[in-house]
Amino acid sequence: MTSLPYDPQQLALRAGEIVVTTRELAARGWTPATSSNFSHRIDDWHVAITVSGRDKGHLAQDDVMVVDLEGNPVATTRRSSAETLLHTQLYKRFPEVGCVLHTHSLNQTVASRLYAGAGRMRFEGYELLKAFVGTSTHDTTLDLPVLSNTQDMRTLAAQVDVLLDRQPLWGYLIDGHGLYAWGGDMAEARRHLDAFEFLIGCELELRKLQR
Amino acid sequence: MTSLPYDPQQLALRAGEIVVTTRELAARGWTPATSSNFSHRIDDWHVAITVSGRDKGHLAQDDVMVVDLEGNPVATTRRSSAETLLHTQLYKRFPEVGCVLHTHSLNQTVASRLYAGAGRMRFEGYELLKAFVGTSTHDTTLDLPVLSNTQDMRTLAAQVDVLLDRQPLWGYLIDGHGLYAWGGDMAEARRHLDAFEFLIGCELELRKLQR
Amino acid sequence: MTSLPYDPQQLALRAGEIVVTTRELAARGWTPATSSNFSHRIDDWHVAITVSGRDKGHLAQDDVMVVDLEGNPVATTRRSSAETLLHTQLYKRFPEVGCVLHTHSLNQTVASRLYAGAGRMRFEGYELLKAFVGTSTHDTTLDLPVLSNTQDMRTLAAQVDVLLDRQPLWGYLIDGHGLYAWGGDMAEARRHLDAFEFLIGCELELRKLQR
Amino acid sequence: MTSLPYDPQQLALRAGEIVVTTRELAARGWTPATSSNFSHRIDDWHVAITVSGRDKGHLAQDDVMVVDLEGNPVATTRRSSAETLLHTQLYKRFPEVGCVLHTHSLNQTVASRLYAGAGRMRFEGYELLKAFVGTSTHDTTLDLPVLSNTQDMRTLAAQVDVLLDRQPLWGYLIDGHGLYAWGGDMAEARRHLDAFEFLIGCELELRKLQR
Repeated sequence: MTSLPYDPQQLALRAGEIVVTTRELAARGWTPATSSNFSHRIDDWHVAITVSGRDKGHLAQDDVMVVDLEGNPVATTRRSSAETLLHTQLYKRFPEVGCVLHTHSLNQTVASRLYAGAGRMRFEGYELLKAFVGTSTHDTTLDLPVLSNTQDMRTLAAQVDVLLDRQPLWGYLIDGHGLYAWGGDMAEARRHLDAFEFLIGCELELRKLQR
Repeated sequence: MTSLPYDPQQLALRAGEIVVTTRELAARGWTPATSSNFSHRIDDWHVAITVSGRDKGHLAQDDVMVVDLEGNPVATTRRSSAETLLHTQLYKRFPEVGCVLHTHSLNQTVASRLYAGAGRMRFEGYELLKAFVGTSTHDTTLDLPVLSNTQDMRTLAAQVDVLLDRQPLWGYLIDGHGLYAWGGDMAEARRHLDAFEFLIGCELELRKLQR
Repeated sequence: MTSLPYDPQQLALRAGEIVVTTRELAARGWTPATSSNFSHRIDDWHVAITVSGRDKGHLAQDDVMVVDLEGNPVATTRRSSAETLLHTQLYKRFPEVGCVLHTHSLNQTVASRLYAGAGRMRFEGYELLKAFVGTSTHDTTLDLPVLSNTQDMRTLAAQVDVLLDRQPLWGYLIDGHGLYAWGGDMAEARRHLDAFEFLIGCELELRKLQR
Repeated sequence: MTSLPYDPQQLALRAGEIVVTTRELAARGWTPATSSNFSHRIDDWHVAITVSGRDKGHLAQDDVMVVDLEGNPVATTRRSSAETLLHTQLYKRFPEVGCVLHTHSLNQTVASRLYAGAGRMRFEGYELLKAFVGTSTHDTTLDLPVLSNTQDMRTLAAQVDVLLDRQPLWGYLIDGHGLYAWGGDMAEARRHLDAFEFLIGCELELRKLQR
């Protein structure tokens, strides 16, 4: 019997959380056509992450695998998403990050295209800004950066690193693609994700209504 | 055994109603990211209210606590929302108010921003105006006030008091924030909430369609 | 034991159909705040219809009562909706009408306001026009009349009668209010209702998109 | 006992897949008023397809019948949709096609009307383009043709044939009608359908937002 380099009970626990959350998000239509991926830290060196290409509405515990902080598969022959590097980049840089959620809602994709030129969406004056760790008033400004899309994950990761050098951040958009959001644990990452989706939706609706 | 200053069976009953309603509203997306709070009168001096910061989609009976009409926790070490004062203000002023519902739907937040300058939304000619207690025809006008947001609840409460001095009211919006709606019991408060959400939605859609 | 003037088994059957359909429509948000009412013919002289003022999302078999073709309650002390006359008018005039559905979706209410001036919505070139009895091609035109709202049901009924004299009809809108749709049985009335809602939605979206 | 020209176990398997998928799509509102039809290949000569006129939200295993590649019913007296020919055309031409899905979502119908003049929708720069077989980057262009509607299926089929001669294709719109999408099996056809719906939705929203 081979011994695993991580605690299999920790994997089971985190995989369970990932499955429940993923199915809830899929039911909202935020993971169209096998897109989107989700991960949770297991320990200082390992991350549980969804396997590439699964229908997220029918995700099962077995569709979650383990990678190390370089994004390499651990004790499995399965393949994680090409975007794994964007997850592990955050775990590696911030010991306090415990969960990363990447979704493709229609609002997220539409906003990413609309604000790609400006390079960011700006949220101001919303009570829901208080949902983000570190914010205790609506009377503030929060920027959600929009990156250009590329199939080269090293380029994307490098761009994210520059952003992270400049400011504290709980998420970013990629043009034509979707949203990355994260937090200390699943509940916090989910709260940040929900708040971003809500604020994006508000801004898009206001843009349609303002004349 | 300490005796409680309220009837625990009344609390259990009202907490149950709050949990069922809250989960239904969460399923509609009206409580994003642990926002929103809900309360029901227990007796002349006590109110059951949701604990601060819970995910409303997974609210449990134990996430409901008791406060007095000044908003102070009763027989608990838990903390209710900062906005508790906006609930108790209504119970204190109107003995006939039995339930207060505060939600953050996207339409409510968008409308609050759009009509903050005007200070109110006006609804006219809708059959659904008959959903409000005291209205028996569509051929009338109803104003939904929009208040400026502030983190100082005493300021907000004072503004609400001025509005209540001026006119009978079943709800108000806070800018960038959401809706307060109330009624004699849960069913009535819910009917008022649903009617406001519907009328807000109609006005926003009409604004997009009118050229 | 009093003998009823209708077959109680027929009532039970139709009440059951009404409850199932009503809950499905409520789940879609087409019956906000205790609005909307639903009926099904029992025999040549009697109609099963929803009791006034119930939350349609929690409708029970017992919330369905019987009226005669003049809209008078039969063997009950309960009260049906003020709009009962708009249901019985159709059963009385057309022996082939078996079911009448009245809903308040947001699209229906918004369209009723937008097209009240024109007096009708016109649908042309939609494949879904084939959903209406008597239509076998998309290459046709169907008008959905929009009536002015009034709390006087006799006035509304008289206006509907004029429309029915002029043309075959499967539904109409009332301004600021909602949609009436009907058919030979529940399935047909439901198909007409769904088709109207879909066509109304398409026209509203196209209006937003056409520049 | 008559022997069937196809394997009844294969039919049962595919009918089951069709029922599950159809109900999921109906729950999303993509099959209004008994519209839409769905099929899956059984073998080189036979196709399982939904019976004409059923409410897709309540589809049962028995509502799936068998046709040959000319669209003729096999071992049944039931009638398949008038549009059966548009399904069998694809199975006949491409041995690798295993599943064809035809839906009527509001976005699909609205887009079909809006882009009928241009004859196609063009999708560019979306990450979700990678959902289509044969595409491995967002940095590409995909055209979704829009055909004129007609009740003559032979005319429609002939137009589709011309399109298929010109380019590889995973779907097309028919004006005022809806979307056809297909793939090697149910999962792939579903992925293509979901991706088309998402991309159509993005383009419509962007059109509303761009000023």
